[in-house]
Amino acid sequence: MQLKVDIIGIDAGGKPIVFLNKTDADEIGVTASARVSLKAKKEVTAIVNVSTKSVKKGHIGISEEIRSSFGHTPHVVDVEISAFPRSLQFVRSKLEGKKLLRHEIYEIVKGVVDGTLNESEIASFVTALHIQGMDLDEATSLSLSMVETGKRLNLRNKVIVDKHSIGGVPGDKTTLLVVPIVAAAGLVIPKTSSRAITSACGTADRAEALMPVNLSSEEMKGVVKKTGGCIVWGGSLELAPADDIFVRTEYSLYIDPLLLPSIMSKKKAAGATHLVIDIPTGRGAKVKTINEADYLAKDLIELGKRLKIHTHCVLSYGEQPVGYTIGPALEAREALQVLMNEANVPDLLDKACNIAGAIFEITGRKNGYSLARQIVRSGKAEAKLREIIREQGGKSTIKPRDIKVGEETIRVKAKSDGKLLWISNSSMVEIARMAGAPKDKGSGIMFSKKIGDTISKDDVIFTVHAEKSRKLSRTHELLERLEPVGIGKRTDMVIHTVREIPELKRSFVLER
Amino acid sequence: MQLKVDIIGIDAGGKPIVFLNKTDADEIGVTASARVSLKAKKEVTAIVNVSTKSVKKGHIGISEEIRSSFGHTPHVVDVEISAFPRSLQFVRSKLEGKKLLRHEIYEIVKGVVDGTLNESEIASFVTALHIQGMDLDEATSLSLSMVETGKRLNLRNKVIVDKHSIGGVPGDKTTLLVVPIVAAAGLVIPKTSSRAITSACGTADRAEALMPVNLSSEEMKGVVKKTGGCIVWGGSLELAPADDIFVRTEYSLYIDPLLLPSIMSKKKAAGATHLVIDIPTGRGAKVKTINEADYLAKDLIELGKRLKIHTHCVLSYGEQPVGYTIGPALEAREALQVLMNEANVPDLLDKACNIAGAIFEITGRKNGYSLARQIVRSGKAEAKLREIIREQGGKSTIKPRDIKVGEETIRVKAKSDGKLLWISNSSMVEIARMAGAPKDKGSGIMFSKKIGDTISKDDVIFTVHAEKSRKLSRTHELLERLEPVGIGKRTDMVIHTVREIPELKRSFVLER
Repeated sequence: MQLKVDIIGIDAGGKPIVFLNKTDADEIGVTASARVSLKAKKEVTAIVNVSTKSVKKGHIGISEEIRSSFGHTPHVVDVEISAFPRSLQFVRSKLEGKKLLRHEIYEIVKGVVDGTLNESEIASFVTALHIQGMDLDEATSLSLSMVETGKRLNLRNKVIVDKHSIGGVPGDKTTLLVVPIVAAAGLVIPKTSSRAITSACGTADRAEALMPVNLSSEEMKGVVKKTGGCIVWGGSLELAPADDIFVRTEYSLYIDPLLLPSIMSKKKAAGATHLVIDIPTGRGAKVKTINEADYLAKDLIELGKRLKIHTHCVLSYGEQPVGYTIGPALEAREALQVLMNEANVPDLLDKACNIAGAIFEITGRKNGYSLARQIVRSGKAEAKLREIIREQGGKSTIKPRDIKVGEETIRVKAKSDGKLLWISNSSMVEIARMAGAPKDKGSGIMFSKKIGDTISKDDVIFTVHAEKSRKLSRTHELLERLEPVGIGKRTDMVIHTVREIPELKRSFVLER
Repeated sequence: MQLKVDIIGIDAGGKPIVFLNKTDADEIGVTASARVSLKAKKEVTAIVNVSTKSVKKGHIGISEEIRSSFGHTPHVVDVEISAFPRSLQFVRSKLEGKKLLRHEIYEIVKGVVDGTLNESEIASFVTALHIQGMDLDEATSLSLSMVETGKRLNLRNKVIVDKHSIGGVPGDKTTLLVVPIVAAAGLVIPKTSSRAITSACGTADRAEALMPVNLSSEEMKGVVKKTGGCIVWGGSLELAPADDIFVRTEYSLYIDPLLLPSIMSKKKAAGATHLVIDIPTGRGAKVKTINEADYLAKDLIELGKRLKIHTHCVLSYGEQPVGYTIGPALEAREALQVLMNEANVPDLLDKACNIAGAIFEITGRKNGYSLARQIVRSGKAEAKLREIIREQGGKSTIKPRDIKVGEETIRVKAKSDGKLLWISNSSMVEIARMAGAPKDKGSGIMFSKKIGDTISKDDVIFTVHAEKSRKLSRTHELLERLEPVGIGKRTDMVIHTVREIPELKRSFVLER
């Protein structure tokens, strides 16, 4: 059916949508969310929205996405119902609990990337994966398909190392230390990282308080060739782009079944040969128990083998924030101070040296931890970070005080004496986000006390920083509602008493 | 955040969507598909689309749906991230395989109807129901919640009967006979029916070839009060509107987990006290085996009990089309001819008398089948149909030849001698739809032979009718590709031989 093209001036965040009048949609035989093929010199597949009033009969409203797929604006397009995509057949197999074959998974991933699977269908696939699970053959196929439908870095080095954290612990600026330590020892570590999704701060957010992170693939490779390392935002490099789409759906549904292929596909696309994965473990982390962490490590190592990435996992203590800060600027400043040997942040330094040490050992060196510690102590790590900052386009002489933090503050004080027994990671994330993190780089939390510290009534336990007073004031309300820390004696036994049906909430960590 | 309102002239088929600029979305803290609350005199919840170019920073594009929710066009709205809907918590419980409680299901259904659950979330819920299943407590809660979130008919009669077919057999015009038979006997049968979704013709489509079916609730009640019956399209009555939204998702995913609540909620909303459900059974029908049909009948009867609807089920032979016609006009004509005692269509007449008979017996009469047969033979059923046609606004003196069928035809002939062994229901549906049904009322199929008939080479087996030559010509191609009937001897044993991995297709029946 020939339809006249209306430019409706809508871009739909990457989705290839068109709007049809109800009468035309009926005549073509499609309903909302169905697929049509549009022909005008070339052929383009689009997802249908049906409009009863705003698009006239005989017309079709096309989004900016469709216009750019055509490369020009056709006056008229020929619109027909599109063949049922084969990928949908395979999505349904997963619904039935069938194990999917390599080419079936490839078809699905391709359908996700090229937009022929609509949002409902992707949500259904992600839900089915969550419920039915996937085995390691399927995880391998998913990882490889996600690599094949995206770009690759193609560095030529024989050994390329990488690190990753499963996430879930706020304040985890370990990468800002590990990359310069490892690069200072002569290894190649092209680190791509993500921005916060559910957290208060992603590694790309905290690195951005030190230097530009939105580099092109070529710029990134230039930095790595000169310095051995980099810390860039992976979002614009189009490594495993399917993952960005899956993540949107997972976020909406609060489930995360694609964790393994998501991690490993990005590492494979970046060319990693050796990989260390940090699994923060404990109440308040994404992974709650050591047993659960060991199972995850087993899968990650086996999946690494199949993808030819030599993988080790490090289980780390995840029951409280790492170091004393949460929020992009506060964390960047803390990391810089530790590398300058100006601040004593023992947990952060210990974690960074352990992870860097594990990278050293997986690539054949001995005494990795001591080597890492030595590289920090000697100032070589600091020098390497400044080199990376310069090559990424930042100011290499940056001082901790140059990194501005929010000046609006709330100091949260102890209501009683005792020991600091626990810190709620999820409450801290909620508070930091309410104060403006990660969008407002200077917003976040600075701790004065950590678990195990002795507290006197009215001691400041932590300080909330915000850039904007509007956001600080809404944080006040939240602080009154939450119980972010626990102070008491180790002999206090009751956690809480349940007297009526509790409001069930689940905190959810989705980071890449 | 205050944003200026842009009217973008998009209605999104009922979905409450807005478009935000990427920068504003980041500042508010939302991504695509998230929810925002809009305040301008009243408060409205909307689903976010993120635009990088077409909506300017500081502006918000609102759909026609949102404009009508406000009841006017505000110049400025206050936009904030919306509280996480409780219903989503319950959707996730189902993902984890938990049984949902009455109030939890109500929240989900309400979220579906008022638009606070987005398409991905609804798809995830439907997928989880498909995989995890639901028990009869949940089916009861779903049915009641779907009734409570819609309108009800509120007829005052003490006994209100209804019938329903599980569907899947083409040419099933039984309802066009059952309603007048039952009403002629003095029972009240306010029949609402649906249009085709995956089939070639729904009951509303075929009834529309005889009379108007888009009646308002008040008009429908007027017809029922005068005649005892009606055959109207249920779509505009807003009985259980959640179902219309679930169906959209089910259709996209080719799954149908809400079958039971979908059927029973519409009957409850229509006020049915006694119900007979036809379960066409057999290869090529929706329900394949008698055992499967019995299980379904058990659930339907039990669910009926809980909803206080006395329910019987009739298992009927479903391996070939009912009667000799498929397609709105052809079927309407055939039904009228049978009621006029002008045509001999034994399977159709037998099925209609059995179902009408079951309705008579469930409401306390004896020898239901004979009574039904007698009502047809005496012409009372025909007279009642004409009465209903008149009251619904049609021409009560309509003759079979007044119902126009498509004049473009293809006659499909036998390639060999033998018996007609099978007719593929799904192929016949595909052919009829390709020829234009149900949109083109005169398009469809007329059979000259049915299963068991003796065939000579070159006998016409069936004739395809189309209104438009364009559609007929594309049917040619389809006929060459499909094998819609089988001719042979009963001693031919091989179904087919599989020599390489077969292309797996599943035909799918979704009717309401």
